[in-house]
Amino acid sequence: MTELLAVALAPLPEVRPGDDLAALIVGAWERTAMERQDLTPREGDVLVVTQKIVSKAEGRIVDLRNVEPRAEAVEFARRFDRDARQVEVVLRESAHVLRMERGVIISRTAHGFVCANAGVDASNVSDPDTVTLLPADPDRSAADLRNRIAEAIGVAPGVVVSDSFGRPWRWGIADVALGVAGFSPLHDQRGLPDAAGRVMRATIVAVADEIASAAELASGKTSGRPVVLVRGAALPQGDGSVAGDVVMPPEFDLFP
Amino acid sequence: MTELLAVALAPLPEVRPGDDLAALIVGAWERTAMERQDLTPREGDVLVVTQKIVSKAEGRIVDLRNVEPRAEAVEFARRFDRDARQVEVVLRESAHVLRMERGVIISRTAHGFVCANAGVDASNVSDPDTVTLLPADPDRSAADLRNRIAEAIGVAPGVVVSDSFGRPWRWGIADVALGVAGFSPLHDQRGLPDAAGRVMRATIVAVADEIASAAELASGKTSGRPVVLVRGAALPQGDGSVAGDVVMPPEFDLFP
Repeated sequence: MTELLAVALAPLPEVRPGDDLAALIVGAWERTAMERQDLTPREGDVLVVTQKIVSKAEGRIVDLRNVEPRAEAVEFARRFDRDARQVEVVLRESAHVLRMERGVIISRTAHGFVCANAGVDASNVSDPDTVTLLPADPDRSAADLRNRIAEAIGVAPGVVVSDSFGRPWRWGIADVALGVAGFSPLHDQRGLPDAAGRVMRATIVAVADEIASAAELASGKTSGRPVVLVRGAALPQGDGSVAGDVVMPPEFDLFP
Repeated sequence: MTELLAVALAPLPEVRPGDDLAALIVGAWERTAMERQDLTPREGDVLVVTQKIVSKAEGRIVDLRNVEPRAEAVEFARRFDRDARQVEVVLRESAHVLRMERGVIISRTAHGFVCANAGVDASNVSDPDTVTLLPADPDRSAADLRNRIAEAIGVAPGVVVSDSFGRPWRWGIADVALGVAGFSPLHDQRGLPDAAGRVMRATIVAVADEIASAAELASGKTSGRPVVLVRGAALPQGDGSVAGDVVMPPEFDLFP
């Protein structure tokens, strides 16, 4: 029987640029496992780490006091009651703007992610004049964490760097994977027989995204517990990446 | 500490039109709880039930032998190696076609869902000449199941009717909620302080969708276990619905 367990690890201190995030996570895992011995690291465990703390540790923080907004940003901010400097940073982080209307900016980042505000985020940052950017290479961030954690504890967990994305056509945000290490983010079930014995034609499951969503439920946005242990998911073998496997190249995009 | 648990209930027999799905689910839950007493029904439990078995029980099955495809369906099927009768059913289930190219049909259903093939599905149906349609009113399907299960066992579980949707801009499918009963599908955290004590402006979490995704990880597509018990999610209070709360009205749609 498959059983999925998602547990938020013990709280982390406020993460600052240059902090050793892997060490902080190992510490949180150790404190968690002292209370709950069944949560001692095991083969197949996945740690889901929110983008925000990865970005902070990597110094992906912009001081808005040093940002000079272009005219387009000033005008958009004025019309929709936003911070022009923040809009400027969003535009700088956007490789291609898909929509810029009704106060919303939907763009494709240099990584290829299509999301609101190019992932630029002001929430959960203690200084109101700063924002965080997405990690420069979230797959590499995940791989670095995986390697450093493995060195410390002797087990290499899967790692997902997660963020909350809105979706077209549905209200609400859901967490998805920005980066992954230790397993393939997609489970390609094409060619496998379904429960009725028929071959499935087009079933590729976004396992890493679903793991990110499950982790969000265990963590919550306000908890101070930005790392979640997910255990029991069937992890697709292989060394895939979100950038290489999940991000859809623009030429396949039906909604440019 | 929040802890999310998702466990697939014992397998169900093949579901047929007119079957008492609530009774089948109660039976599966009882068999599961005999092996795992900790899985005895509790307040706050959510059952995630795949659309496919709900549709089958409700008789939402179309016999393709009785379908006469229109010329547009014949032409599209010929170009992209699809079944013209199935394309015809997809067009009948589409209130509005957003994209119909490269063999893919993305449309808005009468419910307001934007998805591939209007939710018409040939997989996991034992007769290759039949397809399933989405339930006519998935929120009502969920509410009916919740009420009937509560009558049988004395505890009213939350119920999610789930389906696998593709996403624009990302490869892979992830499970979302088509219908919900017993809790609100969105957790509106606007106005709550975040971990840094700042007020969050635009955080509405799609809890029911994330629950559906977590359940998919515990079930898998090929397991014959189409019902998953999810325990531990913080369920937003209220009697919301997917149709009323999650489905974005077309006038807000940035990607028509």
